[in-house]
Amino acid sequence: MGKALAVSPLAPASFPTLPDIGGVEIATAAAGVKYKDRTDVMLARLAPGTTMAGVFTRSATRSAPVLDCQAKIGTASDAGAAILVNSGNSNAFTGGRGVESVQAITQSVANATGVPVERVFTSSTGVIGEPLPHDRIIAKLDDLASALEAANMEHAARAIMTTDTFPKGAGAEIMVDGQPVRIAGIAKGSGMIAPDMATMLVYIFTDAQIAQPPLQAMLSRLTDRTFNCITVDSDTSTSDTLLLAATGASGVAVDDAPEFEAALHDVMQDLAHQVVRDGEGATKFVTVQVTGAASDADARTHALSIANSPLVKTAIAGEDPNWGRIVMAIGKSGAAADRDRLTIRFGDILVAENGWVAPGYAEDQGATYMQQPDLTITVDIGLGTRQATVWTCDLTHGYISINADYRS
Amino acid sequence: MGKALAVSPLAPASFPTLPDIGGVEIATAAAGVKYKDRTDVMLARLAPGTTMAGVFTRSATRSAPVLDCQAKIGTASDAGAAILVNSGNSNAFTGGRGVESVQAITQSVANATGVPVERVFTSSTGVIGEPLPHDRIIAKLDDLASALEAANMEHAARAIMTTDTFPKGAGAEIMVDGQPVRIAGIAKGSGMIAPDMATMLVYIFTDAQIAQPPLQAMLSRLTDRTFNCITVDSDTSTSDTLLLAATGASGVAVDDAPEFEAALHDVMQDLAHQVVRDGEGATKFVTVQVTGAASDADARTHALSIANSPLVKTAIAGEDPNWGRIVMAIGKSGAAADRDRLTIRFGDILVAENGWVAPGYAEDQGATYMQQPDLTITVDIGLGTRQATVWTCDLTHGYISINADYRS
Repeated sequence: MGKALAVSPLAPASFPTLPDIGGVEIATAAAGVKYKDRTDVMLARLAPGTTMAGVFTRSATRSAPVLDCQAKIGTASDAGAAILVNSGNSNAFTGGRGVESVQAITQSVANATGVPVERVFTSSTGVIGEPLPHDRIIAKLDDLASALEAANMEHAARAIMTTDTFPKGAGAEIMVDGQPVRIAGIAKGSGMIAPDMATMLVYIFTDAQIAQPPLQAMLSRLTDRTFNCITVDSDTSTSDTLLLAATGASGVAVDDAPEFEAALHDVMQDLAHQVVRDGEGATKFVTVQVTGAASDADARTHALSIANSPLVKTAIAGEDPNWGRIVMAIGKSGAAADRDRLTIRFGDILVAENGWVAPGYAEDQGATYMQQPDLTITVDIGLGTRQATVWTCDLTHGYISINADYRS
Repeated sequence: MGKALAVSPLAPASFPTLPDIGGVEIATAAAGVKYKDRTDVMLARLAPGTTMAGVFTRSATRSAPVLDCQAKIGTASDAGAAILVNSGNSNAFTGGRGVESVQAITQSVANATGVPVERVFTSSTGVIGEPLPHDRIIAKLDDLASALEAANMEHAARAIMTTDTFPKGAGAEIMVDGQPVRIAGIAKGSGMIAPDMATMLVYIFTDAQIAQPPLQAMLSRLTDRTFNCITVDSDTSTSDTLLLAATGASGVAVDDAPEFEAALHDVMQDLAHQVVRDGEGATKFVTVQVTGAASDADARTHALSIANSPLVKTAIAGEDPNWGRIVMAIGKSGAAADRDRLTIRFGDILVAENGWVAPGYAEDQGATYMQQPDLTITVDIGLGTRQATVWTCDLTHGYISINADYRS
């Protein structure tokens, strides 16, 4: 990127303090993949006994690193694992050379860390279609391996940023059967964000003890309710990757611990929200709730139609309580709706019902509400009992500036 | 709207000279529905014997005027017909009061013109959710009826504009069996434009002689290849209406005249392209061609995924030959694709093939090509023989400015 972007007005005040996760060591380096004068490579080494789960973009043009991770993720192993991530170049749509880069990187990481190559996972994020200068990354591996230490998650979160304006982290420490279990995660992503994973890279670590199949099932279940419910611009990346590593270092089994799944959900939702809060050009964080739909699928379709509508998103940018555009977005979605049964609320304010503006609604109320940075739009479809919640941001001049100039 | 918008850089040099259509009389007036100091109502009276065909938005929240037109359009009648259009207020999501406005307007038009009310069609375009001040329109009807004259299509095109920056017209005069047949049409629309009709109002008149069922079939067939292949912002209006009136004044039957259908296609495509050229904030007119798809539906899905992608559209705005974003849009569309079989061209320039950048391609070529106002992006999917073409524009700061400020 040519110029530094201003930090999103929706960013948290600071990076959170995250618990140390036994069995996780991390190091970062500045390899000069594309950016100058900043870290752009992260290496994580995970202790023997770690189980790995993952979810990935469903793009039909997914990148070579994604295909390699997918092929490896389900394998059971007592060996440790390693994760190598670079920013600046996504190694996507790079033909046979992309595959060669993945092989070169994973083999070199295996050599430097002692982890078998079939347990080395790599991700790349950044420009599409340019060859990845993997030699620059490989040249840093010995330094990275000798610098591995109990994780500094903020450094790791910074190393994987592209157009992100702040590093993203979230964590939890809970008691299961009277014993502490810890979770810490980092994420990157700010544009090309849509359900089915977005241009996001997410790495979550826990010292919980759990086998791969239940860990994978839990991760897939929670992804559906968190990362697959956010959208910035409806565009889906070729590189999205979420890896979850459970080292078992706590010695606490969590297979049947709903409190662990709840804590993992909260960490994932927190990270997902931070991605939206760093949406390119975002000035508003918007929760879209659809209730009263005829089916779960209809609820989700309506919610995403609202959240992805350029006219809804520009109205929000302009702090315009333009509920007519919400009616439009419901109407175009293709899911079941009846114009005269819709109820629309901005926060707690009843705006429209029975096919028209609500009798007690005054435009001033809506206009005042829209000035807040965090908004909730609720639409009751009036046809059933199913519901969905998605999160999005507004569409501003900032989005145009970033994407008409930045080659990503 | 508060301020006048600059005329689109993609506008034609002038309004075309259109043929007079026998059996069509038009008048316009300034009724002050919302705008000041400009015409905002158009009345057209069509001679007895006119057949009417129409296509309408498929929005589930379509407006009261649309529902009324749909209920009337298929009716056979030897009576004439009338069309009353207002801009400034769409009479959409206005509950029972919207239905009352439609009844009041159509009955008053019937009284003023002598056309039976079941042959009076009305359309409204503009802000959603505010009651239509139909009394202001009705107060002008006697003046309008006495001012009816052989059509001045440019005045009519101006009266139906909202955020449009230029009036849109297209026409044709062809010979069928040695006799002249004429077509003249007008359109409005510039935002909330997506397949399934967009915020568009289109009125096409011809002196051809043809019964309602074949006219309707022809119109639906051609709409699929013209107005349903354009997109500005993927948002679909609650008010879209296309009416086609065939007065029969030429005395020439066109049921079995492929040259008539071809000429009507060209008029419709011309109007559809003008809507895109007036896309809110547009600086580029983009033809997206997808070839080699496995099915017609896949070809269309891929083409629309490219044409609606905010990242593709902002890259075009920035004159950035960012073919990586085209790969992304293909990948996310959900239709069949194989990353390594894609071929991408900008105009005649081969950009990418076999899963990577083409060996002979230099970025300079693409960058120079992107500086033109009219662009063609062609993607061969490499999986079959089916194809689709859609038209769109870029996504610019102008779109944000118009839609974050204008209450439509």
